[in-house]
Amino acid sequence: MILPSHGSNPHYLYEALEIEMPRSILDFSANINPMGPPLRIKERWSGFFEGVMHYPDPHAVELTKAIAGKEALPVPSVLVGNGGAEIIMLVANILANRKVLIIQPAFAEYEQACLAAGCEVDFHQLDPPDWQLDVARLIPGLREYDAVFLCTPNNPTGVSFEREAMMELIGECQKADCLVVIDEAFYDFTEDAFTYASLINRFPHLLILRSMTKIFAIPGLRLGYLLAEPNIIKRVKSYKPHWSVNQVALEVGRICLEEEVYISETRAFIQSQKQKLFQCYRELGMTVSASTVNFYLLKDESLTLFPFLLKKGIVPRHTYNFPGLDGLWLRFAVKGERDNEALMEGVRQWKRQGSAS
Amino acid sequence: MILPSHGSNPHYLYEALEIEMPRSILDFSANINPMGPPLRIKERWSGFFEGVMHYPDPHAVELTKAIAGKEALPVPSVLVGNGGAEIIMLVANILANRKVLIIQPAFAEYEQACLAAGCEVDFHQLDPPDWQLDVARLIPGLREYDAVFLCTPNNPTGVSFEREAMMELIGECQKADCLVVIDEAFYDFTEDAFTYASLINRFPHLLILRSMTKIFAIPGLRLGYLLAEPNIIKRVKSYKPHWSVNQVALEVGRICLEEEVYISETRAFIQSQKQKLFQCYRELGMTVSASTVNFYLLKDESLTLFPFLLKKGIVPRHTYNFPGLDGLWLRFAVKGERDNEALMEGVRQWKRQGSAS
Repeated sequence: MILPSHGSNPHYLYEALEIEMPRSILDFSANINPMGPPLRIKERWSGFFEGVMHYPDPHAVELTKAIAGKEALPVPSVLVGNGGAEIIMLVANILANRKVLIIQPAFAEYEQACLAAGCEVDFHQLDPPDWQLDVARLIPGLREYDAVFLCTPNNPTGVSFEREAMMELIGECQKADCLVVIDEAFYDFTEDAFTYASLINRFPHLLILRSMTKIFAIPGLRLGYLLAEPNIIKRVKSYKPHWSVNQVALEVGRICLEEEVYISETRAFIQSQKQKLFQCYRELGMTVSASTVNFYLLKDESLTLFPFLLKKGIVPRHTYNFPGLDGLWLRFAVKGERDNEALMEGVRQWKRQGSAS
Repeated sequence: MILPSHGSNPHYLYEALEIEMPRSILDFSANINPMGPPLRIKERWSGFFEGVMHYPDPHAVELTKAIAGKEALPVPSVLVGNGGAEIIMLVANILANRKVLIIQPAFAEYEQACLAAGCEVDFHQLDPPDWQLDVARLIPGLREYDAVFLCTPNNPTGVSFEREAMMELIGECQKADCLVVIDEAFYDFTEDAFTYASLINRFPHLLILRSMTKIFAIPGLRLGYLLAEPNIIKRVKSYKPHWSVNQVALEVGRICLEEEVYISETRAFIQSQKQKLFQCYRELGMTVSASTVNFYLLKDESLTLFPFLLKKGIVPRHTYNFPGLDGLWLRFAVKGERDNEALMEGVRQWKRQGSAS
């Protein structure tokens, strides 16, 4: 049985499992801001039609400048791309046929992109229940690799790696002449929006991946960017198709960057919902990951919660293709209040029915 | 002086030439349907907002099926991509570090994509004034190459290669175990919309590139596809970033495929406008290419027409980066009636002022 290697588009999951998909479903498998896109996007939507008729600026100058300003980085340190997934593919291209290390569990796309680029791929496995970096175990092997990929806050666990460990890893990668690619796709969901981006000036081996599709709930438009030293940006850009970022995304992106209040409201909402959810799970004697963001792992050792919820139309993200998780955990996005309550009710029902059945 | 290697986004051109950009400009440098997007796109625009919030189907199943149906090809012979430019990059990836031949003049992206993929790139130069294939000269060298890239109708000349010569080339490429990549980005502007797509079943070395951004005037959304034998599609797809085609493009694409009347109206309009334009140029004693599509080359041997028009806010596409054209020709899109008249008036003024000044 091969399950889809990404969340969203749940019909692919139901087809693979041969479970009939209920008419109405609640999809917890995509880690998207439950508040939906900023209001101004909807208000200005009709104005974006004009942009359909013209080629987008292939250099995305305006959006690039706005991002550079916000990150206090030079403009040549920013590359706007067609979603984080494109940026990952482009970064893999500059690593073609080299040896890379992926800190697991992690977003499946690093491995897929690196394999497509002919890289030799090794895993460094982090362990439950805290999934923190063990730098002492990591460092001795670094010289073997041309790049290390990791994501913090981590997808799928939701855990943020300890900063001291991260700083040590970044420094050691520099010494070992090994690129360190940090995916911060979910950093703006954390309470203090901590980022490693400002270190690029000091550590030219550092690459920061960002996504605008999660925090601004615009996955249908595709928008992400890379922050790195200008020579790396230039090499990565040489693999980028011309005009790869569509004009609607470019215009929406500029509006999104101004949405500070929306982001802080999102954070507050996510934290309060997560509190309710985690309290429920504790009461049921269940284990969750120490998530700092808008999704978390819930332990499902009996493997019965997954099909139980699917049949009810509640769609978790399975973890069969995350090394070290192997389906024993389910990933859930924090959604709107009513949806989260439906999920808690579903999990309670499963408990009542006898969770091991 | 380095001029932009693509049309559209004219401010880059004015900057490079250090000519002040007039407030109002008429951009003839992008080969887009002058009728604008089909009416139904504008009518349904507000409905596309919903799609922003969800991940697009990474396999674009519905649009892929619709294209396969229209082309009478099996579904696994179709790959939908983020504009023709993405498809070209992906095709270059399967040719990484191999030797390719580009039939020139041609769209600049083949060379850029192949160089980025580490290919060795040779040119086969076609000659004015007819720019037709000389198959006898081409065939003997084919065995040297892993792929040949060409576009017919040709960009930038607008010339369609003779079918007999094309058929011979496709057959010989098969014998020489050399892929033949035919870019048909503008085929639907020609009078009979002739295509080589149906030959894929007979010639598994044949790849057909298509663009939906030109004929449907949606370059801001990005949409294109590849037609090829299923194993080639599978290899090309392995390099494609997940979700590279945005959801708005997927929905708009399905509507566009039904727009048969719009396409035939476009063709009729283009032909009638081109007649007027070409008659004007003949009367002025000027030379044009035998274009079958929505753009054409106009000879500017004195190199003075280009800056003359730019200063008036009329933007041609220069040809300095097209081997064999070297700026001696200007490419113009066929635009709406009033714009074409403004162009003819501009060219007449230039003639009156003494064209060599």
